[in-house]
Amino acid sequence: MDLLTIKDPSFLKKMNKEELEALSLEIRNFLIERLSMTGGHIGPNLGVVELTLALHKCFDSPQDKFLWDVGHQSYVHKILTGRADQFDTLRQYQGLCGFPKMSESEHDVWEAGHSSTSLSAAMGMAIARDIKGESSYVIPVIGDGALTGGMALEALNHIGHEQKDIIVVLNDNEMSIAPNVGALHNVLGKLRTAGKYQWAKDELEYLLKKIPAVGGKLASTAERVKDSLKYLLVSGVFFEELGFTYLGPVDGHDYDDLFENLQYAKKTKGPVLLHVLTKKGKGYSPAEADKTGTWHGTGQYKIETGDLIKAVNIAPAWSAVISETVRKLAREDERIVAITPAMPVGSKLEKFAEEFPDRMFDVGIAEQHATTMAAGLATQKMKPFLAIYSTFLQRAYDQVLHDICRQNLNVFLGVDRAGLVGADGETHQGVFDIAFLRSLPNIVLMMPKDENEGQHMVKTAVQYNDGPIALRFPRGNGYGVPMDDQLQTIPIGTWEILKTGHDAAILTFGTTIPMALEAANRLEKQGISVRVVNARFIKPMDEAMLHHILEKNMPILTIEEAVLQGGFGSAVMEFAHDQGYHHATIDRMGIPDRFIEHGSVKELLNEIDMTSDHVVSKINAILPQKIKRA
Amino acid sequence: MDLLTIKDPSFLKKMNKEELEALSLEIRNFLIERLSMTGGHIGPNLGVVELTLALHKCFDSPQDKFLWDVGHQSYVHKILTGRADQFDTLRQYQGLCGFPKMSESEHDVWEAGHSSTSLSAAMGMAIARDIKGESSYVIPVIGDGALTGGMALEALNHIGHEQKDIIVVLNDNEMSIAPNVGALHNVLGKLRTAGKYQWAKDELEYLLKKIPAVGGKLASTAERVKDSLKYLLVSGVFFEELGFTYLGPVDGHDYDDLFENLQYAKKTKGPVLLHVLTKKGKGYSPAEADKTGTWHGTGQYKIETGDLIKAVNIAPAWSAVISETVRKLAREDERIVAITPAMPVGSKLEKFAEEFPDRMFDVGIAEQHATTMAAGLATQKMKPFLAIYSTFLQRAYDQVLHDICRQNLNVFLGVDRAGLVGADGETHQGVFDIAFLRSLPNIVLMMPKDENEGQHMVKTAVQYNDGPIALRFPRGNGYGVPMDDQLQTIPIGTWEILKTGHDAAILTFGTTIPMALEAANRLEKQGISVRVVNARFIKPMDEAMLHHILEKNMPILTIEEAVLQGGFGSAVMEFAHDQGYHHATIDRMGIPDRFIEHGSVKELLNEIDMTSDHVVSKINAILPQKIKRA
Repeated sequence: MDLLTIKDPSFLKKMNKEELEALSLEIRNFLIERLSMTGGHIGPNLGVVELTLALHKCFDSPQDKFLWDVGHQSYVHKILTGRADQFDTLRQYQGLCGFPKMSESEHDVWEAGHSSTSLSAAMGMAIARDIKGESSYVIPVIGDGALTGGMALEALNHIGHEQKDIIVVLNDNEMSIAPNVGALHNVLGKLRTAGKYQWAKDELEYLLKKIPAVGGKLASTAERVKDSLKYLLVSGVFFEELGFTYLGPVDGHDYDDLFENLQYAKKTKGPVLLHVLTKKGKGYSPAEADKTGTWHGTGQYKIETGDLIKAVNIAPAWSAVISETVRKLAREDERIVAITPAMPVGSKLEKFAEEFPDRMFDVGIAEQHATTMAAGLATQKMKPFLAIYSTFLQRAYDQVLHDICRQNLNVFLGVDRAGLVGADGETHQGVFDIAFLRSLPNIVLMMPKDENEGQHMVKTAVQYNDGPIALRFPRGNGYGVPMDDQLQTIPIGTWEILKTGHDAAILTFGTTIPMALEAANRLEKQGISVRVVNARFIKPMDEAMLHHILEKNMPILTIEEAVLQGGFGSAVMEFAHDQGYHHATIDRMGIPDRFIEHGSVKELLNEIDMTSDHVVSKINAILPQKIKRA
Repeated sequence: MDLLTIKDPSFLKKMNKEELEALSLEIRNFLIERLSMTGGHIGPNLGVVELTLALHKCFDSPQDKFLWDVGHQSYVHKILTGRADQFDTLRQYQGLCGFPKMSESEHDVWEAGHSSTSLSAAMGMAIARDIKGESSYVIPVIGDGALTGGMALEALNHIGHEQKDIIVVLNDNEMSIAPNVGALHNVLGKLRTAGKYQWAKDELEYLLKKIPAVGGKLASTAERVKDSLKYLLVSGVFFEELGFTYLGPVDGHDYDDLFENLQYAKKTKGPVLLHVLTKKGKGYSPAEADKTGTWHGTGQYKIETGDLIKAVNIAPAWSAVISETVRKLAREDERIVAITPAMPVGSKLEKFAEEFPDRMFDVGIAEQHATTMAAGLATQKMKPFLAIYSTFLQRAYDQVLHDICRQNLNVFLGVDRAGLVGADGETHQGVFDIAFLRSLPNIVLMMPKDENEGQHMVKTAVQYNDGPIALRFPRGNGYGVPMDDQLQTIPIGTWEILKTGHDAAILTFGTTIPMALEAANRLEKQGISVRVVNARFIKPMDEAMLHHILEKNMPILTIEEAVLQGGFGSAVMEFAHDQGYHHATIDRMGIPDRFIEHGSVKELLNEIDMTSDHVVSKINAILPQKIKRA
């Protein structure tokens, strides 16, 4: 059938298994072909083709509610709900969102980009349904990786307790973004490999023989029965214990198996956990063969060979610069331990893991634990490097505040993907970290102008032993600047003048520096002399330089690729007024007070008036009259 | 023995069981007597007397590391580590902290006030130990309530996976602050009641008979074996499954039982979960009999009768005003659902629960889940009221951002204990919420001047249907102002002039209004006319009123009982400069950039120069010269 003609999923009701299988093939081919041109989350979506079709056949969306945890596996759902024709705009500016989006379709009842939210949201929906006396199914679809996130476990606990009718589909593909971590994963692994009929009498008889007579010491008894008990644990006991009816494991690519269990789940009262085994990348051999997560999300690729089409970029990735410098320093400094919450590849920590396997910890999707574990390490005079994306650090706000900053511990936060991130869009923009970190006592917050300064800032952070220090850096690649051989430390709280000038000053840092310099150069041609300052320490600021600029009464423009409310520009205002410079002219440029959707960073910056043109006009607007006339 | 002479816990090594029991009694009497005068967390500490003594006898602190989760049960530990003589200053200004404090003692190796951090911190310490090749025990002591917090579950998962040598002491007292919630609690309940020798052959034979022949359908098999399986679940399977050696349950008031199991735990490789049953309030009958959590933490009390000595306060508690108004409105508005993360008593939601048992959810210590569950409810056109303390809302920052604000959902956040909280000190001060909420798009943030305005703000929040709205209010009691019978809505973003004046303007809200009025009245006598504005909407602000004040060029002083960095005062500066009022004189008063310890709110405000005297001098400092001379 022509996928582009699908308006809603009702046509599935009449389809038989053979037709569904044919449709699955078409959808796979469509995804492989379209995503080869746009990029996107190919692996997760190829894995859930049959599951998504089966769900839409067995349930009635939108009355029945599908909640796609993390949300990046919702492409098949988007095709079935009438959006196939928009896939050529996927993740592009003003195009189809890569995550569920209520404004796109009534079938998108919950939006997410961060993981582990679907169970809590489902609980809210189930409570609402029951209070209203309605009847509908609430079906969160959550991956095995997302299940290790603390809030998902909180929700399992509460759902089990309340015995609400919720069908949790556990999409177990053995891999979150990187291979999964944790004891829970082992439980799932056992379930996965157990087969269905493990509950054999002979197993239990074996167990029976191993049980000692009544009356032994507890501890030793527990010890002895432990191994035997393992035989019982291939059953879903873990989830049953939490109050769920466990169904599975189900072959997530077998329609018969899926239908049988989904129908059974529909008839079951109380919470159900349906354990579905899927294969990421199913049906496209390069993605199926992926062991490291390369095919989780990709850019463009050649379909025939599976070769990724990479933009020619001789400049190194920011994550690589930072993590590789940490690795270099770890050779001399045994205090350094690296921690990642499930992003070893994204954070470019693979080589660190190879060289220092005992000093690298991937804790899974568990940002809170990662952050407080870093605090624990720091109490023991270690130097933990927590590599974490800005947007995911939001999950650990209280841990940064209560555990790290309050105890003033020497944790090195590597805040990756800071600023606008592009195609992942509004759930992933790293634009809040300045506002939420700057208001915390004791923390140092810095951002480098280029990758060379970035490596020096790594050195600075490692050498710094007076409390927490955060190094934020953008997504993507550096500029290809020459890299110094010798690492240096940068004095904390010092800024750098990149361009001299006396009519006005631009204070900025990181990615917005080139825009500032371009504007200053253009203004120079108009006879206006603008100082451009690399305000690389967002906290503490360079007070001597600020005094100098404020004393000279130079109008100031601050530029930051971060939210304006409570951001760097506000810090400059606070300083000015606190120091009695009440007549200082200060204007700010940054992210306005709304969420920013997906698109290229350039398109997004243009949308929010962050261009060198706007810098030029803002500077012109704040210049004193006498200079304007000059 | 004289507890005041204890310098460190080494004396315990030589004590026999009888001596320890005598010491336990002395410590209980000491606690009951001292806390009757100072108040404090009496229930939790009476419950861990034997456990704490046993730990200090069996291990060697500070080489071996005790991490007291939540921290409020560390009083016995403080007595044993030489701090008995400071108990007359407990939780008082510059006195003994109610939580572990590294600066007090080398035996305090981890500080906490928020729950569920100890396992992650312990993992960090264990990793550090192993990298350094040291040998020591790491022993987090965590309550059954704290174990439902997501980060504790994240940590259990990771510890089990890594098989680190950590002895987790699960202090199971069947009650966190309120009675526990959740399926996990049921698991613990089964373990608690099971007794030790449940692993009897006859149980297993019973099970064996119930197992169907091999080959049945999976789903129905699972269904049929489920009940039988329950017999196996009295074993600690849950924790064994996660990779822990489970020991217990142990009678936490029986030294023989404690020693035997602690010694066994010391010999066991890999992570151990030692399940200890204790009774909150043990040894003091009023506290033992407590069912609701009254004796979790108290003020002063009469020892003989157990009567709490309450300050005579005819004004209602803030929490009661807010929650009772919600209850009143819930009678007419069926959309209202109340949610609390384990604080039904503190949030005064008992009556709501009684009247609307199906519309009230205590989710346990699970702030993330509570917040996203509220978001889920809001997607279904319900009106969730999330009652949460400011300091605990920090745990749900990403859920407020990613789930509520980003989807612009109608969640009503009741942000309790906002501002300084007094005796609980630096872990509990509710001073960050303005900075972290104000920078989020879509949210309305308000604070009432008194309890009458508070009830109107509840009405306002319930009526508001354009997105999230947060009502912050302080700890403690209102002023006893007359309460209007008719609830009104307050137009969003409108401020109120409390005192007219033209020489300067004070913009403030909530608890700092009386200080501002007092200062303005004093200044009036000096001939200085100061306008005092109730800036009750922190976001959005009253732009018309701001324009008026800025146009008149009145110097502005902002006052907030919250951190200055990125706070309300900064919002006023941002507005002024954005609107081109670059010459506005704006000064701020608020919490400086450091953590504020315990003490009465009055003492703390005095310490940080937030008094009417300071308001007077700040106003004098910002007045234009001509007025000063007048």
